Amino acid sequence: MSKNILNYRDHGGVKAEKFYKTTLFQGNYLMLGLNCLEPGQTQPLHDHADQDKFYFVIEGTGLFTIGAETTEVGQGGVVWAEAGAPHGVKNQGSERLTILVGIAPPPK
Amino acid sequence: MSKNILNYRDHGGVKAEKFYKTTLFQGNYLMLGLNCLEPGQTQPLHDHADQDKFYFVIEGTGLFTIGAETTEVGQGGVVWAEAGAPHGVKNQGSERLTILVGIAPPPK
Repeated sequence: MSKNILNYRDHGGVKAEKFYKTTLFQGNYLMLGLNCLEPGQTQPLHDHADQDKFYFVIEGTGLFTIGAETTEVGQGGVVWAEAGAPHGVKNQGSERLTILVGIAPPPK
Repeated sequence: MSKNILNYRDHGGVKAEKFYKTTLFQGNYLMLGLNCLEPGQTQPLHDHADQDKFYFVIEGTGLFTIGAETTEVGQGGVVWAEAGAPHGVKNQGSERLTILVGIAPPPK
């Protein structure tokens, strides 16, 4: 397959101590990655002062916090964390949570 | 629902003369949108000199061209068009093609 094309199913994984994250593509302006959270795993609340970020829920359900607001989001949900907005996610469900993530500009 | 959270299903559409596109979120660094191509519809080959772009296939199948290479990509496919790479897509299938799209930095 092309170096510019992949399927997320070939890039999932499990990391016991925290959660699994991998970079799918990265250019000068955008980083695209995959996050996989097993039931009970959490990405703690954090922010990026000068980077916009989105999450797209591919599989599972996550409890997403953006600023002061926490919302359960399932498959097909798009979550937006504009630069400076604190954000995080917890998998309180019983199946793996798989999320496509983009950060612009990419982490240095 | 939050102004930072939506489901792509609430944002699809049809545009007869070309294809349907809508902006989901836009910040200073990233624009996130949805493209819906009915069977037979095409996004002609084009490029963005100073913007990275990705496509994520949510539903359907598309014939994606990146540079000189054309590949059929189905649900779960991630297509990367780094700044300067010519890219386009045609829906040659029999069902709607729904794509999440991100461009960084956003179009002016």
